[in-house]
Amino acid sequence: MNFKELLPDVRDAIEHGDDARLDALFSEARSADIAEVISHEDDDTALRVLERLPLERRGKVFSYLPEGYQRDIASELDDAKLAQLFVQMEPDDIADVLNFFPPARRETILRRVASSERAEIRHLASYDEGTAGAMMTTDYVAVSQHLTVSEALSKVRQTAPDAETIYQIYSLDDALRLTGTMSLRQLILADPQATLESVMISDVISVEVETPQEEVAKAISRYDLLALPVVNPERVLVGIVTYDDAMDVVERETTDDFHKSGSVGSLVRGIGRSSLFHLYKSRVFWLVLLVFGNLFSGAGIAHFEDTISAHVALVFFLPLLIGSGGNAGSQAATLMVRGLGTGEVNIRDWTRLLGREVLVSALLGITMAIAISPISAFRGGFGVSEVVAISMVVIVVCGSLLGMSLPFLLDRLKVDPATASAPLVATLCDCCGVLIYFSIASMMLSL
Amino acid sequence: MNFKELLPDVRDAIEHGDDARLDALFSEARSADIAEVISHEDDDTALRVLERLPLERRGKVFSYLPEGYQRDIASELDDAKLAQLFVQMEPDDIADVLNFFPPARRETILRRVASSERAEIRHLASYDEGTAGAMMTTDYVAVSQHLTVSEALSKVRQTAPDAETIYQIYSLDDALRLTGTMSLRQLILADPQATLESVMISDVISVEVETPQEEVAKAISRYDLLALPVVNPERVLVGIVTYDDAMDVVERETTDDFHKSGSVGSLVRGIGRSSLFHLYKSRVFWLVLLVFGNLFSGAGIAHFEDTISAHVALVFFLPLLIGSGGNAGSQAATLMVRGLGTGEVNIRDWTRLLGREVLVSALLGITMAIAISPISAFRGGFGVSEVVAISMVVIVVCGSLLGMSLPFLLDRLKVDPATASAPLVATLCDCCGVLIYFSIASMMLSL
Repeated sequence: MNFKELLPDVRDAIEHGDDARLDALFSEARSADIAEVISHEDDDTALRVLERLPLERRGKVFSYLPEGYQRDIASELDDAKLAQLFVQMEPDDIADVLNFFPPARRETILRRVASSERAEIRHLASYDEGTAGAMMTTDYVAVSQHLTVSEALSKVRQTAPDAETIYQIYSLDDALRLTGTMSLRQLILADPQATLESVMISDVISVEVETPQEEVAKAISRYDLLALPVVNPERVLVGIVTYDDAMDVVERETTDDFHKSGSVGSLVRGIGRSSLFHLYKSRVFWLVLLVFGNLFSGAGIAHFEDTISAHVALVFFLPLLIGSGGNAGSQAATLMVRGLGTGEVNIRDWTRLLGREVLVSALLGITMAIAISPISAFRGGFGVSEVVAISMVVIVVCGSLLGMSLPFLLDRLKVDPATASAPLVATLCDCCGVLIYFSIASMMLSL
Repeated sequence: MNFKELLPDVRDAIEHGDDARLDALFSEARSADIAEVISHEDDDTALRVLERLPLERRGKVFSYLPEGYQRDIASELDDAKLAQLFVQMEPDDIADVLNFFPPARRETILRRVASSERAEIRHLASYDEGTAGAMMTTDYVAVSQHLTVSEALSKVRQTAPDAETIYQIYSLDDALRLTGTMSLRQLILADPQATLESVMISDVISVEVETPQEEVAKAISRYDLLALPVVNPERVLVGIVTYDDAMDVVERETTDDFHKSGSVGSLVRGIGRSSLFHLYKSRVFWLVLLVFGNLFSGAGIAHFEDTISAHVALVFFLPLLIGSGGNAGSQAATLMVRGLGTGEVNIRDWTRLLGREVLVSALLGITMAIAISPISAFRGGFGVSEVVAISMVVIVVCGSLLGMSLPFLLDRLKVDPATASAPLVATLCDCCGVLIYFSIASMMLSL
């Protein structure tokens, strides 16, 4: 039974207060599916459902919840209930939850955690959010490089119940520095009497604790890794990041980039569960800023009031021309933002891409000018039709160049290029479009 | 040495025609990094570099190239050179390359492939692009459910050199139907004399050969799987999809969705290497379509020509008001498109979210109306200022509702909700904005 089959049954059981049925449904279901169901409910229901789960599943289900939901639910729980949740959670996940709270509260919660785990959790909670340190787990398999393959295999067997993954093994020198890595498959296939030094790959891909999470995720994806070791500045192995955590980061980052592309600010909770205030806050900044951007377009129009009064037909084509510039600019910006995001283009490609953009956008502008010419000739006569055609080409080229250059400029200024959102680019193109259109019109029509 | 360090050196060696240095650089580098370097070069250079690689690396590097580049390069190669490339490639990757070519050419290429692999490749190439069948590999570890743990382990050891992963093992009944799964870790920890039936998890998550690739990727990510088994309608195991292929699909799908959000059509090659013609083609459809959308705004303006002539100051606020509606609408659409994409909201949430959107957008509209009121009062006097404030609130609410509803509507019509791009939403909001603004103006100012 998957999530989609589970949801209606669970909703039905909740509505009817049928707790026995709820228990039966959950005992059959996977933790990931229960988490998915919970994340579609409001806070109170989610909490009630979570507390019905047996203790050994509660933490597991909780770990599968998206970060924003974890934060909401954790903030409703007292120390004792949080500690119950932690019983079946991994130390790195517990550390993430602790970081939702102020330091003083963290300590009172930690007092209820098994003392054997306390130091590790405290340590993991000390890394900055969004770094490799905050993503990593300390439950990895590391062995001395002086062991033989068969000794290493028996170490793997001992560690197997507790490690996050046993399929990638790391070898250390006597100072605990990372010297090599090998897969469990390599170990199984190797001669049992060989030394690890003869088996291991010594050119290990690793990151430092401060490496940003996007880079961690990119490395795991590029090299198709199961896990990526994290080292401190002395190259001492301190943890590993597994591929499944990298996939979660990619999903969160993508959501952020998407929201930026629509000039929506950061939303910790998803759209479905964000409060009205958070939704308002995530949107108001750009909307008001863009209002003032659009004022410049208005000022441009005011400047050409005489031209407009003389040829009112020009206003008919205004939304069309500035809209087309904005659309072409948004397209160009979207292509560049994504290209920079995946690493497919970089700042050195700018001049080369600029040349191509001039050509492509001129072709696009000419196509659009031709498409519109029968209508502009019909509405405005030959003079206006000429103005509209020339303006269309110039506006589309300028809009495209603006749209493609802005992400590079932002990148250079160390601002996320995704800030060059469609609405921002459209607003800038609107201003340019007004000036270009009426300048060309007043030049050509006053002759 | 990673990709960023490698690129300048390789470029330098290529420019100076220093082949010996190129060989030395590549012998030290990882295949994934060489692929990354190649993907930043033009087709001719990429081809030349690829052919300098020793035969045993060529196919590996090629496998790491993005699909669009693979297609470009493969189309330049004759059958003999393609066969050389295939020597070190996995059957599923070879099948993907074969699918770039028409069926007749496929057969002539296949004749050069080792006959032992031919049937498997032909079979894999027969699945539709974008389905689990096309993503899967047939190199998995499957064992009879009647074996003991120790028998299964020795089977794993035998299969280890060839299987794509040995860390997830699948158990089959006598009709080769999938009956269970276990991780290598479980096997290692289990009693060697136990039967697999007592160890395996019989509630296996699986997909069918026809399942779309996005659903495959979502299942792997949701359940944190290493690999996902693919079965035919009789539940016979036919292949597995591994997590790294799922990550590649997620990246490609995200790029597609990003491009759609900027109303850019599908681009097989990345922005950096697409031909002018492909770039033009990917953008012209929406641009021309939106031109005709914008014509309606123009027609709206023409309809209110008398009102405009009487109060020319109204034109000053036109870009501001229609722009704000478009921006608010783009934000709402972006939030919904992403929410639907991640599965966080679904069509049943529409009415609930609509209610919230009315509230949030009304608050946003009021904020913007207040922000703009000093300027509108100063420029247009009290009458115009009132019209602008009321229009702003109505336009922002209508734009937001339009923006949030369009993705749901598209989803219901089985069209990808991401088609509700910022430029499309902005153009629709422009039309509504013109009508709302001048309707309110002619009502209020003629009184």
